[in-house]
Amino acid sequence: MSAPGPQPPARLLGPQTKGVTSVARVPDAWYVACMSSELRPGRVIGRDVLGLPLVLFRTKAGDVGALMDRCPHRNVPLSMGRVEQESLQCPYHGWRFSTDGACLEVPCLIGETDKKGRRADAFAVRERDGFVWIYATPGAEPTSEPYAIPCADDPRYTTVRQAVEAEGSLHAVAENALDVPHTAFLHKGLFRGNSEPNKIEVCVRNWGDRVEAEYLGEPRPEGIAGRILAPGVDAKVEHFDRFILPCVAQVEYRLGESHFLVTSCLTPLSDYRTRLFAAISFRLPLPGFLVKLVLAPFARWIFHQDQVILARQTENLRRFGGEQYVSTDVDALGQHIRQLLKRAERGQLETSEEPQIKRFEMLVG
Amino acid sequence: MSAPGPQPPARLLGPQTKGVTSVARVPDAWYVACMSSELRPGRVIGRDVLGLPLVLFRTKAGDVGALMDRCPHRNVPLSMGRVEQESLQCPYHGWRFSTDGACLEVPCLIGETDKKGRRADAFAVRERDGFVWIYATPGAEPTSEPYAIPCADDPRYTTVRQAVEAEGSLHAVAENALDVPHTAFLHKGLFRGNSEPNKIEVCVRNWGDRVEAEYLGEPRPEGIAGRILAPGVDAKVEHFDRFILPCVAQVEYRLGESHFLVTSCLTPLSDYRTRLFAAISFRLPLPGFLVKLVLAPFARWIFHQDQVILARQTENLRRFGGEQYVSTDVDALGQHIRQLLKRAERGQLETSEEPQIKRFEMLVG
Amino acid sequence: MSAPGPQPPARLLGPQTKGVTSVARVPDAWYVACMSSELRPGRVIGRDVLGLPLVLFRTKAGDVGALMDRCPHRNVPLSMGRVEQESLQCPYHGWRFSTDGACLEVPCLIGETDKKGRRADAFAVRERDGFVWIYATPGAEPTSEPYAIPCADDPRYTTVRQAVEAEGSLHAVAENALDVPHTAFLHKGLFRGNSEPNKIEVCVRNWGDRVEAEYLGEPRPEGIAGRILAPGVDAKVEHFDRFILPCVAQVEYRLGESHFLVTSCLTPLSDYRTRLFAAISFRLPLPGFLVKLVLAPFARWIFHQDQVILARQTENLRRFGGEQYVSTDVDALGQHIRQLLKRAERGQLETSEEPQIKRFEMLVG
Repeated sequence: MSAPGPQPPARLLGPQTKGVTSVARVPDAWYVACMSSELRPGRVIGRDVLGLPLVLFRTKAGDVGALMDRCPHRNVPLSMGRVEQESLQCPYHGWRFSTDGACLEVPCLIGETDKKGRRADAFAVRERDGFVWIYATPGAEPTSEPYAIPCADDPRYTTVRQAVEAEGSLHAVAENALDVPHTAFLHKGLFRGNSEPNKIEVCVRNWGDRVEAEYLGEPRPEGIAGRILAPGVDAKVEHFDRFILPCVAQVEYRLGESHFLVTSCLTPLSDYRTRLFAAISFRLPLPGFLVKLVLAPFARWIFHQDQVILARQTENLRRFGGEQYVSTDVDALGQHIRQLLKRAERGQLETSEEPQIKRFEMLVG
Repeated sequence: MSAPGPQPPARLLGPQTKGVTSVARVPDAWYVACMSSELRPGRVIGRDVLGLPLVLFRTKAGDVGALMDRCPHRNVPLSMGRVEQESLQCPYHGWRFSTDGACLEVPCLIGETDKKGRRADAFAVRERDGFVWIYATPGAEPTSEPYAIPCADDPRYTTVRQAVEAEGSLHAVAENALDVPHTAFLHKGLFRGNSEPNKIEVCVRNWGDRVEAEYLGEPRPEGIAGRILAPGVDAKVEHFDRFILPCVAQVEYRLGESHFLVTSCLTPLSDYRTRLFAAISFRLPLPGFLVKLVLAPFARWIFHQDQVILARQTENLRRFGGEQYVSTDVDALGQHIRQLLKRAERGQLETSEEPQIKRFEMLVG
Repeated sequence: MSAPGPQPPARLLGPQTKGVTSVARVPDAWYVACMSSELRPGRVIGRDVLGLPLVLFRTKAGDVGALMDRCPHRNVPLSMGRVEQESLQCPYHGWRFSTDGACLEVPCLIGETDKKGRRADAFAVRERDGFVWIYATPGAEPTSEPYAIPCADDPRYTTVRQAVEAEGSLHAVAENALDVPHTAFLHKGLFRGNSEPNKIEVCVRNWGDRVEAEYLGEPRPEGIAGRILAPGVDAKVEHFDRFILPCVAQVEYRLGESHFLVTSCLTPLSDYRTRLFAAISFRLPLPGFLVKLVLAPFARWIFHQDQVILARQTENLRRFGGEQYVSTDVDALGQHIRQLLKRAERGQLETSEEPQIKRFEMLVG
């Protein structure tokens, strides 16, 4: 807020892109705000969701509160404060708030404390599958429940949870997470890109609130990933990529008895910054603890490569003032995700029991 | 001025606050630009006042000039220049200006030098009580004189001068300087907050161009501050907090023979950055030099705690796009200060000999 | 693209300058994008020209391509990519482009690759006199050829090439490069400023697309520069400063047999950042390699002094929201350059065989 001051008119050419963007705004929905493990009793976290600054806190008794990160009194961030028993206390004048936003104390004041104007805006909270979900419209009564992550609580599976951030819109991060062609190139040698390309069939199914790509006839992945996923197995690969409105990107692999499911819950912190909360569940012929040891650094390595590209992509959208994408068949899900998000934003979802289906062939290395 | 470039439209929710702000613009008034001790003969200082970039300089003979910090020729900041005898010289082409802005030399040019268009905009200057005041409208003839700081030149008092900056509007800094409740919380143990709360009476008097809160029945301050202020004394405390338009915040304490007066002259550098020039005058039963030794670091410590809060408060106003304050009785002066500033900005001051009075009770620990 | 968020209204006075600027936009012209020596075979450079992000690359065979720095597919900067034989490859999905922007490969895709929408915008390229020039309108057929730099390829001359950047508009940098009075002040002791001022005559000739100042009766330059330029010579100095639309600033000195020509090709990277590509050609009584040894650090030293001033000047234009210049006779070329640039921007050039001539006298030290 350092006075921006007047600016001389910008007169250089600058790029000519129209301000097109895949950013969509879907506030009447649940997003993961943090991992349960981040928020131990007594802890306070400041976090943005959809551009809204939130403060998350867990009381000594274990309850979680999610309030607008602004004291109603003098607008200091409550995330600077601390948990006092079952309340969150502002560091400036000591006002205290309950998990539902009620004002419990105004120091020095004689008389009633909890008045309507003194309440902090509160967000609905659910804790499940190891994540803290919030409903992104403050004060609203949710009309749905958060997405239930398959396998996350199934004792037959080992589940690893990770949180990472990328400089990219929810759309860009979701498309990246569910895109096949870049894996052979950007992540060359990790998944694909070693062998001669095979022609495979792709079947895309769109239900209006979610979309799925099934890859038929895909050879067993080469490289390190393939060897971990299914050592010594030569079974048929079943491979699905899914996007479920408004924030879930899911990759599923089955090879014989092996089952591998990565569910990424994407939370837009701001227009072009997204936090990805991943639950990676697997059931493999190897001991879970051993796979876990390899998997965590491997996942970070891959994601780091994606982070670099996403950041430069976003920087370029900033330089050019928007997106000017051209797509081909092999961008199997990107345009579907964009369309779903835009419809959800406008409140024009049209779902159906029978999906719209599109089939095409592509080369996979 | 790196071309900002086109921006894709921001589409996330973002906070919903209206752009309300306590920032007020009162240019036809005096503000402290610097301490006299900062500006030795030959020195040049660049400083913003009310968003205007100024250059201050003192000639070899001791006169002070305050000019717009821009050479009329090619707009280079004159604060990069140096004092040449009785003038300030631009470092680019060597143009020289007198303390009243007249152009004294244009190197290489044959003919007359001082023409109207070549003058630098000049500000009226007064030096008193150890401060250099400027009238914030360039070229204007002041219709008033700067505020005379009580006790600053009284030989019976010891006076310490300090300059500090905070990331906050003049209103936020003035309210902070004159606020009682936060002292028991943010500065816990330094002034208050140690003992059981007492019920005291507050009397607020508003004259239309200044406002004062008198605290009646306040116990002698506990903690370090109290012991320094009045060692071994158990006298009745007289305590006044005052705001005087447009820029003076004053705290006064009397305990028996002891007298303590802090006058803070607040200069808005920009919308949300304020420089505070404090004159701390006292007459105590302890030797002045001894109190001085303790006082300076103590004052810095307290102010540092305030700086942290003010910076985060301002950052939050930036995030939310404005203020959304809710006040109670115990915010004794904040809303009065805002009202006075806003009226002064609109040129609608209504002063009266008889103040408007409001009384209420509060708890002080 | 971190969501800028709403801003509370700026209410402080701020400086009152109108948004006047000398920035001009002349895209249908050639600018130097890089030195030939920067772009070895296989190298990729990202560079802005007139606010347009470009990627420059040289194939293994030595051809130079200049494309818009954005993959048509997912808008990642192609300057992150690498040269694959005769093409540039995007690092995200591996799309490949020829020097003229044609799409040569879309990995995974079955079928035709080069479609119109998949082409990258391409800029016309010329390589001459040791520089790579680009025509600043993508896709356009140039109607002219780049400026031919005199002496640069003449074997009787030694030519040194340097590239430096300054935080200033093309106008500010050109005026600085061709300005005489500041040399006696900012660069005191290097060129001028040591001796008693002489009255000399200046003749300015303006052809509508270029302007030239001739300095008549100028004494041999004092200081280091003079001694290098013409040791032991006391001949008549011939001195010309020239600006040639839209981007060439040229300084020429002749002293007897000595000849010294500095041609600066100015490329606006953005509104207020300019890259200067200098070709310094000379024929002196000293061995060329010896002069070269001294000249390079000397030129950097002078330019560093200019960079500091230009950056602060630009910062001040930013603070004040534009230019508010006042000029005198001794600003021989500044206003002419501005006028030429503005007319070129509006497409209203009026050139003539006979120049408009203005004569005046000035003092040179």
